[in-house]
Amino acid sequence: VNDAGTAGLAREIEAYFDRLWPLMRSITGAGVRQSHDILSEIVPLERIEVPSGTPVFDWIVPKEWVVREAYVVMPDGRRILDIRVNNLHLINYSIPFRGKVSRAELDRHLHSIPELPTAIPYITSYYALRWGFCIADAERRRLPEGDYEVVIDTDFIDGSLTISHTVLPGESEREVLLSTYTCHPSLANNELSGPLVMAFLARAIAAWPRRRYSYRFVFLPETIGSISYLAHIGEHLKAKCDAGFVVSCVGNATPFHYKRSRRGNALGDRAAEYVLRRRGTPAENIMNFFVTRGGDELQYCSLGFDLPVGSMTRLMYGLYLEYHTSLDNRDFISFAALAEAVHVYLQTCRAIEVNRRYRTTLVHGMPQLGKRGLYPTLSNARNADEHIAAITSLIAFSDGATDLLEIAGRHGLDIELLDEIAQRCVAAGLLEAVG
Amino acid sequence: VNDAGTAGLAREIEAYFDRLWPLMRSITGAGVRQSHDILSEIVPLERIEVPSGTPVFDWIVPKEWVVREAYVVMPDGRRILDIRVNNLHLINYSIPFRGKVSRAELDRHLHSIPELPTAIPYITSYYALRWGFCIADAERRRLPEGDYEVVIDTDFIDGSLTISHTVLPGESEREVLLSTYTCHPSLANNELSGPLVMAFLARAIAAWPRRRYSYRFVFLPETIGSISYLAHIGEHLKAKCDAGFVVSCVGNATPFHYKRSRRGNALGDRAAEYVLRRRGTPAENIMNFFVTRGGDELQYCSLGFDLPVGSMTRLMYGLYLEYHTSLDNRDFISFAALAEAVHVYLQTCRAIEVNRRYRTTLVHGMPQLGKRGLYPTLSNARNADEHIAAITSLIAFSDGATDLLEIAGRHGLDIELLDEIAQRCVAAGLLEAVG
Amino acid sequence: VNDAGTAGLAREIEAYFDRLWPLMRSITGAGVRQSHDILSEIVPLERIEVPSGTPVFDWIVPKEWVVREAYVVMPDGRRILDIRVNNLHLINYSIPFRGKVSRAELDRHLHSIPELPTAIPYITSYYALRWGFCIADAERRRLPEGDYEVVIDTDFIDGSLTISHTVLPGESEREVLLSTYTCHPSLANNELSGPLVMAFLARAIAAWPRRRYSYRFVFLPETIGSISYLAHIGEHLKAKCDAGFVVSCVGNATPFHYKRSRRGNALGDRAAEYVLRRRGTPAENIMNFFVTRGGDELQYCSLGFDLPVGSMTRLMYGLYLEYHTSLDNRDFISFAALAEAVHVYLQTCRAIEVNRRYRTTLVHGMPQLGKRGLYPTLSNARNADEHIAAITSLIAFSDGATDLLEIAGRHGLDIELLDEIAQRCVAAGLLEAVG
Repeated sequence: VNDAGTAGLAREIEAYFDRLWPLMRSITGAGVRQSHDILSEIVPLERIEVPSGTPVFDWIVPKEWVVREAYVVMPDGRRILDIRVNNLHLINYSIPFRGKVSRAELDRHLHSIPELPTAIPYITSYYALRWGFCIADAERRRLPEGDYEVVIDTDFIDGSLTISHTVLPGESEREVLLSTYTCHPSLANNELSGPLVMAFLARAIAAWPRRRYSYRFVFLPETIGSISYLAHIGEHLKAKCDAGFVVSCVGNATPFHYKRSRRGNALGDRAAEYVLRRRGTPAENIMNFFVTRGGDELQYCSLGFDLPVGSMTRLMYGLYLEYHTSLDNRDFISFAALAEAVHVYLQTCRAIEVNRRYRTTLVHGMPQLGKRGLYPTLSNARNADEHIAAITSLIAFSDGATDLLEIAGRHGLDIELLDEIAQRCVAAGLLEAVG
Repeated sequence: VNDAGTAGLAREIEAYFDRLWPLMRSITGAGVRQSHDILSEIVPLERIEVPSGTPVFDWIVPKEWVVREAYVVMPDGRRILDIRVNNLHLINYSIPFRGKVSRAELDRHLHSIPELPTAIPYITSYYALRWGFCIADAERRRLPEGDYEVVIDTDFIDGSLTISHTVLPGESEREVLLSTYTCHPSLANNELSGPLVMAFLARAIAAWPRRRYSYRFVFLPETIGSISYLAHIGEHLKAKCDAGFVVSCVGNATPFHYKRSRRGNALGDRAAEYVLRRRGTPAENIMNFFVTRGGDELQYCSLGFDLPVGSMTRLMYGLYLEYHTSLDNRDFISFAALAEAVHVYLQTCRAIEVNRRYRTTLVHGMPQLGKRGLYPTLSNARNADEHIAAITSLIAFSDGATDLLEIAGRHGLDIELLDEIAQRCVAAGLLEAVG
Repeated sequence: VNDAGTAGLAREIEAYFDRLWPLMRSITGAGVRQSHDILSEIVPLERIEVPSGTPVFDWIVPKEWVVREAYVVMPDGRRILDIRVNNLHLINYSIPFRGKVSRAELDRHLHSIPELPTAIPYITSYYALRWGFCIADAERRRLPEGDYEVVIDTDFIDGSLTISHTVLPGESEREVLLSTYTCHPSLANNELSGPLVMAFLARAIAAWPRRRYSYRFVFLPETIGSISYLAHIGEHLKAKCDAGFVVSCVGNATPFHYKRSRRGNALGDRAAEYVLRRRGTPAENIMNFFVTRGGDELQYCSLGFDLPVGSMTRLMYGLYLEYHTSLDNRDFISFAALAEAVHVYLQTCRAIEVNRRYRTTLVHGMPQLGKRGLYPTLSNARNADEHIAAITSLIAFSDGATDLLEIAGRHGLDIELLDEIAQRCVAAGLLEAVG
């Protein structure tokens, strides 16, 4: 990917971002469906609707939330906390309410962050019935005494929970799973960065001339969505999934992080680490699986499934103050960083694609490369050195058990170059692919 | 343990210290029995007397040493090197001697440390017959020419070697062994710190409302004592002992050290490391098993027994110049440090007590905690975070093979909190205890 | 080895160096045979001649190269690039050529290094037919226009490839392999250091009163030589070789490096690491097996043989600019460093010799050492401490599976002292040798 390509991609992402930003997303509802419709323009997606009330393992799919309007009228008649201005103002899944309340009564239903006085917090209440508004602490402090008119025109209906997905078939039924969430309203890094990067990643992989693996892309609400999806297709994934990633928090121009799957050394873990280490990602940014914070990898890696699903992020949840507030917005992220994240995920998928085990056919001493035309031309010495390093490493370490990721990682070699040379060695009869 | 509790315990320890200090302890004899009588006031102990001449593996229990008096009269009639002034003056296990000797002849029987001119060294000669005195090097240099009258009124009798022990029974016959030595005369860190901390630890564990493990506390002379004890009860320990510690050198307000058992990853090793790492103990203070220096862990871990016995110390033998000299005295140690050592050993035993393996019952996705009332109240956010971290980690990692020590250690969680929440999860049917 | 011994050895090495330096070595030919004749004066060697055209695995032994003279006559009649002045001037394995050429035409056959203007590069062309000269870049730039007379009087004959070797038999048929190359002309660190150190090492080991292992020393041309040798004796080595080293680049007074065998933890790897760590060699100088650069270890460790052969070097190939140029000469190396390398290799072989597994006979508690006279005399306390550390470690860790290298390495002990004390313990019935 050259700079021009990245810049073009960044502009495309930006245009979609601006359309997705104002929609009122939640774990169910019209905002989700509209978002999925837009994402389907990037890569065609299939819809799954899971009816309200469906039991999914230990959970029950909640009623669908309908939001028509929500705002407060001040004693002087001015309208504030209007979700048309910022959809974070309303507690996500708020019950309906309509009435006049005193300032004190209203205050019991307000949420703000004193440490971040200009930030509107993002609050949800999916399973406890309550109403309320989120407000910048500075604004809250300025609210005068008097009567406030509260309008929350919401509803809960027997609808469904929306999941969209697609599978790009490959030569093998073995799958790579990519999953992201679409349940937060106007948040940038911790919402739109994930679906946007994943949709453009899917478009890029759809354009590959061949795929060894099949690639599954899933857009769903966090937790209840992945649990519903696992109820639908978990056993299939358990049988077929070789690698997976939760795509999330990839919007900032900061170093990448990687959270390993529970297994810790799964194919996807190894590919992500290979790619990030070559990028110079600090070792401490690569973390073992943990559940004290996290997203859908907690569901995919739950003991009954234990899928090989990790998560590659940039500025990870929990590492920034702006998280889950109105400060996680368009200005907070970088579209170039999003485009780069598409590229890094692509590299990771490419590493998975080309990773193979080979077996050297001539095992007694190094074979003579010159007579087979496998020695590089000597014009470009630097490149020639890499080429020789790759070919000798391939022959010396291809014992049928060691794969390209291991050879690349241990010896600081480029897996794409290893793959290219491995194909030439296979053609020359020096290597055989295994498995 | 709050500060007041620690201060009160420190004062209690100090009072016992002052009674134990002047007694002439050795590997056998009246001083040992008097010391054990005093320690029995803290926690009742049972006495084992191993008769002189008893073969114990490769050793024979030596005759019992009787000391009545020992001193030297200078040419000017002044009495020096009197064991009533400092019981380190006489070589421990010195043979009797009475006679007039020249300064030169006397000097051949004196021991001092030129590098520590004010220190009286502590010298023993249990198995080679000789007499002699230990003296500060500065004093030795001032001794005038002339005749010296030497009085060493000692004796060797067919008596016995004294061991005291107690077992606090628990619900299980599986045992935790705590062992300390009582064979050095007036030394503080490298003698009295061990038995005092262990006796008060025993008193505290005796007061627990329930014990899963049985706790065995043994007071004995170093080497010959533990070998004798192993001859007595080694096969029992081999069958029953799950964890053990030699309690020694715990008197100084310096960071802790831990010397692992030979096994290296035994239950006690893991508990001690968990506790010390949470205290911020430097990683290099936690050492693999070695025998170039050491105490009774060398006997407990000998190849024929290989018991899981490590040693948690503060300022360890071999790490301080005052070791085995009169400078290792009351001023050298801190009674608050001793009280804290009781507390740290207690925490370690508690970690052993609560350590269990659990199995999650609902393994498909995270179970819903809210409907079971397992979500913490949100009033105290910090505590709530820890609570959520604990409960999600418990459910995610309880695969029936991973125990609380592993979950606590890997994820920086408090094992007592994990235990408390595990009990609630068991009650709610989310976890089952295993084994 | 004391300083006087080292100095004497250094002088001996220097004398041989000066005789070997001017010979025109290559992968075949008279210069190799003359070199081996000289090395045979240090330690008697047996000759193997592998006829030209012999197939050896994937290779064919090339024709033997005969060089009579090679030089260029300048337009003004002066003779330059004469191999009698520096045998690097002629491309090694250059085809014959005789004729008048223009400056431009000559230049197409010249090789120099602009970054090192005073260095004559070392260039080979064993398998591609071409002629050419190597020249200092500064000299090349000064060559005037005009006609140059080129004389390259070389020849390719049906001869043979020369290998010399010897086996010093030991009590066991298990072998330690030492291999070095003799195929470069006048190069110091990256040629003569290897055969000289190895020949004097062989002389020293030949003088040992007893050897447990048999020691095999092989002098051969790089790559084609070791492949030929493996074709000859590879299956024997596969069955018998327990440790091995490629001796190379040991001429500089710089820290040692060690490149592990593919196995990584073979006996020789462990012995070399033990010796180098005791010398304070930085940990990063000890490297896992790699093939991006290297010598005959690539052949010995090829998958079909996988011999336990590593390489202990000082200033390793690839780590210095002077590599493969006329700057790698007599002034670049230190004869004291060569003598020291003999000593370090000897220590490594000694560590292999004395390494054994023992089993403690008295496993219940520490045995009493005093009554067996195994306690050291107390006159020299420092030495006594080491002695006690050694004997207690031997008894505590000799479980029949742990060998002396492991005990020495883990506990910072001297393996020669461990061996000495182990023999005394065996005599006293405290240890039994295993295996």
